[in-house]
Amino acid sequence: MQPKATEQQVQHVCQLVKDMGLTDHVIHGTELTVVAVIGEDRRKDQGRLEQAPGVDRVMRVLAPYKLAARESRQERSIVRLSEQCTFGGKDISIIAGPCSVESEEQIMQTARMVKEAGAHALRGGAFKPRTNPYAFQGMGEDGLKLLAAARAETGLAVVTEVVTPDDVELVSKYADCLQIGTRNAQNYKLLEAVGAQSKPVLYKRGMSMTIDEYLQATEYILAGGNNNVVLCERGIRTFEDHTRNTLSLSAVPELHHRTHLPVVIDPSHGTGHARLVPAMARAAVAAGCDGLAIEVHPDPEHALTDGAQSVTPAVLAEMIASVRRVAEAVDRRCGEPVTLAV
Amino acid sequence: MQPKATEQQVQHVCQLVKDMGLTDHVIHGTELTVVAVIGEDRRKDQGRLEQAPGVDRVMRVLAPYKLAARESRQERSIVRLSEQCTFGGKDISIIAGPCSVESEEQIMQTARMVKEAGAHALRGGAFKPRTNPYAFQGMGEDGLKLLAAARAETGLAVVTEVVTPDDVELVSKYADCLQIGTRNAQNYKLLEAVGAQSKPVLYKRGMSMTIDEYLQATEYILAGGNNNVVLCERGIRTFEDHTRNTLSLSAVPELHHRTHLPVVIDPSHGTGHARLVPAMARAAVAAGCDGLAIEVHPDPEHALTDGAQSVTPAVLAEMIASVRRVAEAVDRRCGEPVTLAV
Amino acid sequence: MQPKATEQQVQHVCQLVKDMGLTDHVIHGTELTVVAVIGEDRRKDQGRLEQAPGVDRVMRVLAPYKLAARESRQERSIVRLSEQCTFGGKDISIIAGPCSVESEEQIMQTARMVKEAGAHALRGGAFKPRTNPYAFQGMGEDGLKLLAAARAETGLAVVTEVVTPDDVELVSKYADCLQIGTRNAQNYKLLEAVGAQSKPVLYKRGMSMTIDEYLQATEYILAGGNNNVVLCERGIRTFEDHTRNTLSLSAVPELHHRTHLPVVIDPSHGTGHARLVPAMARAAVAAGCDGLAIEVHPDPEHALTDGAQSVTPAVLAEMIASVRRVAEAVDRRCGEPVTLAV
Amino acid sequence: MQPKATEQQVQHVCQLVKDMGLTDHVIHGTELTVVAVIGEDRRKDQGRLEQAPGVDRVMRVLAPYKLAARESRQERSIVRLSEQCTFGGKDISIIAGPCSVESEEQIMQTARMVKEAGAHALRGGAFKPRTNPYAFQGMGEDGLKLLAAARAETGLAVVTEVVTPDDVELVSKYADCLQIGTRNAQNYKLLEAVGAQSKPVLYKRGMSMTIDEYLQATEYILAGGNNNVVLCERGIRTFEDHTRNTLSLSAVPELHHRTHLPVVIDPSHGTGHARLVPAMARAAVAAGCDGLAIEVHPDPEHALTDGAQSVTPAVLAEMIASVRRVAEAVDRRCGEPVTLAV
Repeated sequence: MQPKATEQQVQHVCQLVKDMGLTDHVIHGTELTVVAVIGEDRRKDQGRLEQAPGVDRVMRVLAPYKLAARESRQERSIVRLSEQCTFGGKDISIIAGPCSVESEEQIMQTARMVKEAGAHALRGGAFKPRTNPYAFQGMGEDGLKLLAAARAETGLAVVTEVVTPDDVELVSKYADCLQIGTRNAQNYKLLEAVGAQSKPVLYKRGMSMTIDEYLQATEYILAGGNNNVVLCERGIRTFEDHTRNTLSLSAVPELHHRTHLPVVIDPSHGTGHARLVPAMARAAVAAGCDGLAIEVHPDPEHALTDGAQSVTPAVLAEMIASVRRVAEAVDRRCGEPVTLAV
Repeated sequence: MQPKATEQQVQHVCQLVKDMGLTDHVIHGTELTVVAVIGEDRRKDQGRLEQAPGVDRVMRVLAPYKLAARESRQERSIVRLSEQCTFGGKDISIIAGPCSVESEEQIMQTARMVKEAGAHALRGGAFKPRTNPYAFQGMGEDGLKLLAAARAETGLAVVTEVVTPDDVELVSKYADCLQIGTRNAQNYKLLEAVGAQSKPVLYKRGMSMTIDEYLQATEYILAGGNNNVVLCERGIRTFEDHTRNTLSLSAVPELHHRTHLPVVIDPSHGTGHARLVPAMARAAVAAGCDGLAIEVHPDPEHALTDGAQSVTPAVLAEMIASVRRVAEAVDRRCGEPVTLAV
Repeated sequence: MQPKATEQQVQHVCQLVKDMGLTDHVIHGTELTVVAVIGEDRRKDQGRLEQAPGVDRVMRVLAPYKLAARESRQERSIVRLSEQCTFGGKDISIIAGPCSVESEEQIMQTARMVKEAGAHALRGGAFKPRTNPYAFQGMGEDGLKLLAAARAETGLAVVTEVVTPDDVELVSKYADCLQIGTRNAQNYKLLEAVGAQSKPVLYKRGMSMTIDEYLQATEYILAGGNNNVVLCERGIRTFEDHTRNTLSLSAVPELHHRTHLPVVIDPSHGTGHARLVPAMARAAVAAGCDGLAIEVHPDPEHALTDGAQSVTPAVLAEMIASVRRVAEAVDRRCGEPVTLAV
Repeated sequence: MQPKATEQQVQHVCQLVKDMGLTDHVIHGTELTVVAVIGEDRRKDQGRLEQAPGVDRVMRVLAPYKLAARESRQERSIVRLSEQCTFGGKDISIIAGPCSVESEEQIMQTARMVKEAGAHALRGGAFKPRTNPYAFQGMGEDGLKLLAAARAETGLAVVTEVVTPDDVELVSKYADCLQIGTRNAQNYKLLEAVGAQSKPVLYKRGMSMTIDEYLQATEYILAGGNNNVVLCERGIRTFEDHTRNTLSLSAVPELHHRTHLPVVIDPSHGTGHARLVPAMARAAVAAGCDGLAIEVHPDPEHALTDGAQSVTPAVLAEMIASVRRVAEAVDRRCGEPVTLAV
């Protein structure tokens, strides 16, 4: 309450609390009075009380999400995309591939190269949400088919983005994991749609979402019955201009503290510059992440999208080797690279 | 180019530029060399060049949007929702109403009260994108019908949000103007869907979009053939904690400088606190905005959503009176309030 | 407390609270327990409790500043720089002048021109804190003498920056008001130094300070016995790139709500672009500010510093005329321009 | 230039460029004209051109700092605080200690404990810049004497903050390294003062400084002749609220790319929560940093300042052991802990 709130105003607030089906509890301080509101308030709108006369502020004590919360589960969740690709256990899995599927040759070549470099899953966009409407928007279903073909050849799990509820069924037919991009992080209809099916979801944090908002939005997926959610920090929007976004690695220990879900880091979008990716990938693993998502293009100079942040397969291979050493230094594991039979 | 770039690296970049169908132009400075890229590059991905050896940075000179740009049109666009409600001319129109349609009594009562207070359009959400999945999500089509009934009685134009492409047809049947909310500001499928129909669109800026990104995304609507777009600044995400968002009023003169589209300000979401709304509404009009969007609830303490930022009809009436004076001080006009016949 | 905190942990926290000389009060909720801490805690470090076992978070209820708080004074403070220049009453006073004092001709000419345009005080830096060490750093005491000469001729009050405690005595000998710049907003030794003398202080908000931190830092000045403090919002650091800073006008009603001190707006630094200054100056007045600080240069193209954000005297005159109309529309006053006798 | 700039306007800009002693070079594009400005422009104010008629924007190509730039030196700089404590070579050195020196017992006990835990330098504030004027401000010279005594006993190098130019001589008498805190990051008089003496400087990035601004400000120290500068990222101000600041680890590879100076990370201020410190310390080392600064208090619950972010000596010992493993995984070294002779 405000310092000069009257006893009548305090009583009015207590009545409002009772009207909400909650319990009130008044604390008289030396300079002001506080009304504690007790009860399961996660579904209540705290804004309602702020307008009552004499009220100074409403502060929330209880986190407004439940299924994602650490308290709701004893163990960490493990999300499995394929036998070689899991998130949340001892293994650190690496998702690698181009921003967009551009052609059969490009995706097949990349798939083979990232497999040999040691990656566990192939990423590649068939439906691309581009900032600019005149930019390349993706190959659509043809791109999905190419990803499936690349999986058939390499055994890599396939991760690809879905941008609208109507495409969820189609994309889940081809993919092992559906990605929700940062621009759709609060597209709740889309979150509901991926929550209503059973394929794992790689859910990227919105570029200006707090951790609290992120976990509340995650509830949209979990509430639909799909618990196979992998969280992904991909950089937040700040004043910094040496990177495209600011990669906030403290999200890793914080999310592990608050939720049982695995956490993947995307240093490619998180920095926007290929030269910063390897150092940040190592840092992410040292911070305790459960996986990495890396943009790779065999020829970044000629990529149709996001060339600046793509590393070459050669850089990827070197990076995974160094990541493996860091993983072991923090008692994790990152599987050995595989040479594909010719 | 980097300070130590070789002539060969410069030539390689020039070749890449030519490969993109653009013209190169080399400038030798005292400490480094710059390659100017000339041509219609709005559809090109500048990231592609950044990876070439010896390249330091790629800087864009030309704005990557076209239809929204001031250059594309001599006059300011006027968007008309109804005879009494237009944006972009001399008149400042006011959209007022509750965050959500909650019941027939609530919306009818509010509609009458905001009409008498001097508003020109009624807002109210039937489909609500809520941060928390357990919070009230709106009345759906029943809410739309109540809005239409309120229009029939008061003559107010109806503005309401659409959250997914599948609902566009339904919402446009009832509404005079479709609102795109901040969380869907980069939901490009939704932007395309409202661009493919003809009802005016109130398009809110994403909470962490730059003005450049905002206008690029606006192109998604314009490119579909719908020019009836009203832009809306509703606060951006910053470190400030005394408000829910930071209302960035410099967006008004900046958007007017760059585009021909009208600009509305939403001081309710822009501050999150009812007590800050009237001052910011006056400031917005003095900054040159073409309209205001204000959250109003007859009983904010009992609102199901966003009570903290809703003003009462009495505060709205007073605020519009003061806004009218400011409007005249900057040679604009804000229509007189109307007393409804009983 | 954390959801699984033991009774013993709660008791330990209560003991810590008692050890701090405060009173504890335990509230048992449905899912967790809260320990309310009662007492004059403004001098206590809330961080100390956060480390106790079982503690989840510490939330502060009482603002940690006192002298600046609205509660400590019934009326708004009026700060007087000269007979024509006061802040905090009905009058809106305008401080105008160049970023730097560059020469006798430049400052004298500017002083006459801003006086005729209707300004009430002359600003101009003699000691400049520049981002770049190789940039022009100001004329020092010679600049101060020129400012005093300009005051003698025009009657304008003089506002100028002080950058280090050692210069406070010197600057206060010449100036009517000492300015603390944004880069020194948390230079506490400097705040103490200006608090220990009696000349009014124009204290600019740090570019990433919250309102709370700003008012806490203001206490450094007030605690020294100098109550003549004028607060100044000059833009905050955000992700926006169309302006040098984001001018956060909601600071005006918020500061008026929390403190009795007057508030000035600086739209020149707040936007960084001359073409945005007039609209934002009008908006600031409509938001309720008590004064404006405007950068003016007779020849911005040849200014040694901050040319991009300086308006010409002609633009200033026009702007003040329009500001005057807005001031009247919000029941304030902005004195008529004066023609200097020749 | 703006799309509709006239040839005359272009010529006027070219003349302005020549007047600045620089060379102009005109490029005619398909939609607009660009004037390239060639020459050593680091000391020029780019704002001057922005006001010329027809100018749209001024974009800087060359970084405005020189001594700190990578180009100015072939090798990385090594800064030596003592035989055991160097930054910039293969070794990663750890600075540990309390926020404030509080008493002889506290600092002596902490010094012994951090030494045994494996730290290389002791930190502790004798002069504290506190947000709140009523909070504990440090012990002053008595605190410095205690730090010197702790060095005598343990052999740890001493790092302590200096907050005003007048104290530089005093502090440098006792300390091995002078710290500039984040709130003084743009207190240029203080930067000049530490640049004019020869003790190493631990210079913390301002909480809202870009990397460019940070390196420009670093020039203030280097330009005075003191090259012994250790940079320190300690978290930036963003919208995130789960941490006190957002620790931006991409600053490590970016600073190493741009400058020859060593980089230290402060995960204590960078997160504000003791439970996040060990993970972020490991991440920092994996990202390539040259050292760590860690807040340690033997009894964080009873620390006078910053208890929430202080770890205990036991946690420090464990953390250094894990940091050592990560250091080796990235081919660095972090010296073995030492047991003090009794």
